[in-house]
Amino acid sequence: MKNPLILVTNDDGITAPGLRSLIEFMKEIGDVVVVAPDSPQSGMGHAITIDNTLYSKKVIIDKDKGAPAEYSCSGTPADCVKLALQELLDRKPDIVVSGINHGSNASINVIYSGTMSAAIEAGIEGIPAIGFSLLDYSWKADFSGVGRSAKKIVQEALTQGMPRGTVLNVNIPKTDGAEPKGIKICRQARANWREKFDRRKSPTGREYFWLTGEFELLDKGEDTDIHALSEGFVSVVPTQFDLTAHHAIQQLNSWNFNE
Amino acid sequence: MKNPLILVTNDDGITAPGLRSLIEFMKEIGDVVVVAPDSPQSGMGHAITIDNTLYSKKVIIDKDKGAPAEYSCSGTPADCVKLALQELLDRKPDIVVSGINHGSNASINVIYSGTMSAAIEAGIEGIPAIGFSLLDYSWKADFSGVGRSAKKIVQEALTQGMPRGTVLNVNIPKTDGAEPKGIKICRQARANWREKFDRRKSPTGREYFWLTGEFELLDKGEDTDIHALSEGFVSVVPTQFDLTAHHAIQQLNSWNFNE
Repeated sequence: MKNPLILVTNDDGITAPGLRSLIEFMKEIGDVVVVAPDSPQSGMGHAITIDNTLYSKKVIIDKDKGAPAEYSCSGTPADCVKLALQELLDRKPDIVVSGINHGSNASINVIYSGTMSAAIEAGIEGIPAIGFSLLDYSWKADFSGVGRSAKKIVQEALTQGMPRGTVLNVNIPKTDGAEPKGIKICRQARANWREKFDRRKSPTGREYFWLTGEFELLDKGEDTDIHALSEGFVSVVPTQFDLTAHHAIQQLNSWNFNE
Repeated sequence: MKNPLILVTNDDGITAPGLRSLIEFMKEIGDVVVVAPDSPQSGMGHAITIDNTLYSKKVIIDKDKGAPAEYSCSGTPADCVKLALQELLDRKPDIVVSGINHGSNASINVIYSGTMSAAIEAGIEGIPAIGFSLLDYSWKADFSGVGRSAKKIVQEALTQGMPRGTVLNVNIPKTDGAEPKGIKICRQARANWREKFDRRKSPTGREYFWLTGEFELLDKGEDTDIHALSEGFVSVVPTQFDLTAHHAIQQLNSWNFNE
């Protein structure tokens, strides 16, 4: 049987340790091609580049541990997937994996996540896709405990196929090299960011802001990703790109628009 | 009774005719404050600015037809909403309206939409929110037929309150000034973009790409936004930011992770 073709991308950029680890894990499962941003794209959400040019070039980042073919791209994670599928790959990949992100994409973070936007872009194109994130923002994060879970999830996705119209949002607790306790299927916890803007003055006296904030959990459910992670489990949330709130349609039909 | 406070934003930038029209419509309903990007942000998805500074300043774009208070912001639509709520407004707005976008945000376009990301950001913060888009990409689009529908929808939202965890994605057919046939509650049509990259060479010989593509409808349902728009109706899709594919959780629980 032919090896599965695995497209690897991310939002932290092609040199990020999380991506380099994911490449090594995926090489144990199939043939890997990398198409990833040439610079960090965190917080890019599902941005695409429509008013600017895109550059892409073949690169070698790590001759021994890297993939046989790697491309950097000047665009966003969603751009990388579009460019890979349309221009750079010889055939449709069997799966697209994105990450491993340095930092959580659990709960409401999925909305702002470049890592997940790459997975969602592939999902829209009908390709099984998974975003991986480790709950450690450090560039020196320890990814050694992540491999076994990541490989299991990718192998099951290749074997079972993805539920229609979904991609997987996988978050992994920070274990500093130890194995997580197991893998749990979860729902996205309800939460928001309590923003704080840090007001400063530039050397020339112009006022500017830095966006900062605190994560605020609004959900005590034990079936959420945040809960699973807090107990040391890997969380897997099936994530959809049909954003329709189907349950709300009936309620809205009672609104009085047409008199 | 106090006038409702209406925050108006968009992704085409603070000078866009669609925004200027929306301000005029909303001034008939309540007190309007504008916080909008200082330059076009189309295709920004739900991007936020975390690795860069944000600037904001009070501006007067149109002394007569504008709002009493308008601010431009160097960030994305989601940044504008965060900054408005946290730093610029005296009190929580009763509703946030975004648009009117020059071009469709129906169907899968919602995923890439800066207009909708502003609405979703407000929804996450628990504020009723609506994104408006007109199916006309032209900067000179005729917004005169849009006012009656837009005002009706905002008034109903203020009266009825928004279904929990949802915002509204409103798309308006191009009617060149005429009234749409009515308003329909819909679901998001299944579709994708069939990408094409236009490969070119720069004057110095470097290869680059432009992202282009064609919208591909994969859905023949008569309850979709695309169908309503094709029949001349305004489409209203309740849109959620809990991306969990709840129906897929059971299926994923049959996957074999933990042996």
